[in-house]
Amino acid sequence: LDSGALVDVRRMLNGLAPGEIAHLLESSPPKFRNILWQMIEGDQEGEVLGELPDDLQAHFLSRMDAAEVATITEGLEDDDIADILQQLPDRVTWEVLNHMDHQDRARLESVMLYPDDVAGGLMNTDTITIRASLTLEVVLRYLRRHEEIPEMTDNLIVVNRSDQFIGVLPLRTLLVSDPNVSVREMMVTDIDPIPVNMPDYEVARLFEHNDWVSAPVVDDSGRLLGRITIDDVVDVIREDADHSFMSMAGLDEEEDTFASVGKAAPKRAIWLGINLITAFIAASAINMFQDTIDKVVALAVLMPIVASMGGIAGTQTLTVLVRGIAMGQVSRNNQNWLLSREVTIGLLNGLLWAAVVAVAASLWFDDWNIGLIIAAAMMINLVTAAFTGAALPLLLTRMSIDPALAGGVVLTTVTDVVGFVSFLGLATLFYA
Amino acid sequence: LDSGALVDVRRMLNGLAPGEIAHLLESSPPKFRNILWQMIEGDQEGEVLGELPDDLQAHFLSRMDAAEVATITEGLEDDDIADILQQLPDRVTWEVLNHMDHQDRARLESVMLYPDDVAGGLMNTDTITIRASLTLEVVLRYLRRHEEIPEMTDNLIVVNRSDQFIGVLPLRTLLVSDPNVSVREMMVTDIDPIPVNMPDYEVARLFEHNDWVSAPVVDDSGRLLGRITIDDVVDVIREDADHSFMSMAGLDEEEDTFASVGKAAPKRAIWLGINLITAFIAASAINMFQDTIDKVVALAVLMPIVASMGGIAGTQTLTVLVRGIAMGQVSRNNQNWLLSREVTIGLLNGLLWAAVVAVAASLWFDDWNIGLIIAAAMMINLVTAAFTGAALPLLLTRMSIDPALAGGVVLTTVTDVVGFVSFLGLATLFYA
Repeated sequence: LDSGALVDVRRMLNGLAPGEIAHLLESSPPKFRNILWQMIEGDQEGEVLGELPDDLQAHFLSRMDAAEVATITEGLEDDDIADILQQLPDRVTWEVLNHMDHQDRARLESVMLYPDDVAGGLMNTDTITIRASLTLEVVLRYLRRHEEIPEMTDNLIVVNRSDQFIGVLPLRTLLVSDPNVSVREMMVTDIDPIPVNMPDYEVARLFEHNDWVSAPVVDDSGRLLGRITIDDVVDVIREDADHSFMSMAGLDEEEDTFASVGKAAPKRAIWLGINLITAFIAASAINMFQDTIDKVVALAVLMPIVASMGGIAGTQTLTVLVRGIAMGQVSRNNQNWLLSREVTIGLLNGLLWAAVVAVAASLWFDDWNIGLIIAAAMMINLVTAAFTGAALPLLLTRMSIDPALAGGVVLTTVTDVVGFVSFLGLATLFYA
Repeated sequence: LDSGALVDVRRMLNGLAPGEIAHLLESSPPKFRNILWQMIEGDQEGEVLGELPDDLQAHFLSRMDAAEVATITEGLEDDDIADILQQLPDRVTWEVLNHMDHQDRARLESVMLYPDDVAGGLMNTDTITIRASLTLEVVLRYLRRHEEIPEMTDNLIVVNRSDQFIGVLPLRTLLVSDPNVSVREMMVTDIDPIPVNMPDYEVARLFEHNDWVSAPVVDDSGRLLGRITIDDVVDVIREDADHSFMSMAGLDEEEDTFASVGKAAPKRAIWLGINLITAFIAASAINMFQDTIDKVVALAVLMPIVASMGGIAGTQTLTVLVRGIAMGQVSRNNQNWLLSREVTIGLLNGLLWAAVVAVAASLWFDDWNIGLIIAAAMMINLVTAAFTGAALPLLLTRMSIDPALAGGVVLTTVTDVVGFVSFLGLATLFYA
């Protein structure tokens, strides 16, 4: 990057939307990130920061003092500021709050009361509220007194005297209706506001099923606290969907694709260590049958087939269940149906592939006994795999353990051990 | 379900939003689905159908004739009708179109020109367009002549005489601005409309980075064709994120959690068959070393450890890369950096766990040679795994093969074969 190129990069960078600049920062190796960050214009820094994942926010924040943080976050949405402040040490957070004006601070403190994985943590306080008794004419004049209407405002929120939610007036209704009728006549009352403590994934599901752009948030007594907008919900959907995928490999959904070796290696090492324990358990299972392997070496050649087919079949079942649970499709009403379906599939595919493997193994080693033994072991392992792959995530979920993270490790241990023990055990009975 | 309960279920069902009913149908085993479907009120059927995944749409459509399909899809958004029609045999599609009025048919045919994975397939034609020369006062009066404004309308679209896109007028601007100024003065012109052939994942990325609620779609000559709304983009985001997760287990992102055994088993069987080939390749690798295993049976006990640790390390790298590619973070500029980072991580974690395994294996079998051999094999396999896990998805993507689907199978074959060959090969050199 010579200085001429730098000027080009700077010009290009500042023609982008904050979300696009954030994407570019995320897509760059660490040392370029610092260079790019310095090129972002001051008034864009806050918006870009708001779009970055937690660990990158923390990285850039660590170089700023409280006054700078207060300056660049000015004008951001409450939930974005709250997210950013959560990356700071507590002491610095309070300093930043002290740099803000009284009204901003009060608003922010109300959002920061809630953890960021519930409705309250996703919420902004930039609602426009109106009373049911007004005419639309008055509402239109009231709006015109505003300098601007917040982004993603599709509804005005109707509240009563005690600030309790009673309905919404869509802008699209306001614009086509007779100005002389009252808000009460035109407002929509059959939407349930979001309780402030609703978990974020339930909020996301409501938005998806109802095709909302924004939705009001209320406290226990129905008082309006703020609103949630679809842009923040999209982030929740993206993260929840990524969560299962990344967890299956022992990774975090906020994993930085371009983390440095020093940051990425230790996280990966832990996962390898956990899986090493699994591998040693499987090895111990084999170890019990040393004498049999010594007699028939072909067993050592074939045993990984039994274990790996069990692993694949179990992972398929686990994947279907983990996704079903994440999407809120699996409940006590249908879990037995799922379990028995999976076991039936395991049985059918067990029969099919056991037969194929039996023939292949028999021909390979010119020994029909070994074919029968591997077929029986495959059947046992594929049915076990199906049962474990289905029962395990249900059990883990009930124990509040993340099935996407823990499921794979436990499942592999089971399919390896059952695969090796059933195959080598049957062989021992036969050849001993 | 006795008849009293049925009445309750029907009442509950028809109090739900179409998206919620669709979710309930998706969360039910096949035979309940048919019962539930019959309880949905006629005027909700179309909306619910529009929210269902493809295979469930096809299931319910197979029991309707063309006239019924035309009736229940009336009033749906164009892209939803187009999706539904794509589930029908071509002959039936044309019959349905013949049952529609001329205008609906013309509109639909324009949407159906495009495959459903590009902007054109996500688009609706329900735009409200205005001219730049009008005053806001005139625009407000023009809107009031509408019976209703389409859902998710946040912007009016400004076009010229030849229907070419020139900008948007946000409703939020319209509502706070002086009615006497012209659209030209208030419209936003610095947004790029979406080309009709843009792939859906790029559309999703634009929406995410720019926090759009809707965006205009244009043809090659800049003529406005329609608009895309965030609710359809959310489905794309959800499916794209699910795609990687499901593909790693050889499943489809539209996989029905409650598919019958008859539908689910054959799909799973194919994946097991592909993996069986992999397993036989790995077995053949072991087969070359029968004599060595015959001499030192401990090798059979330890060999799965080397293969499985390689598989885990490789899967971690593959997962990071697949997600990076899916999110559009990986490009030619940074892929070499990623590749060398992954190999470095493989090397470091290889060193760490090779040392641990060496000590454990040596103590277990009271043989320091076997410890040295397994350590060397682990190093070879973990570095190979890291390189393959990173290079493979880049290569597959360049060959237009889905890395999430094919990556895991190829990777496991490599780590199994390299694991077994390096461990047993080194042992043969030493013990022969």
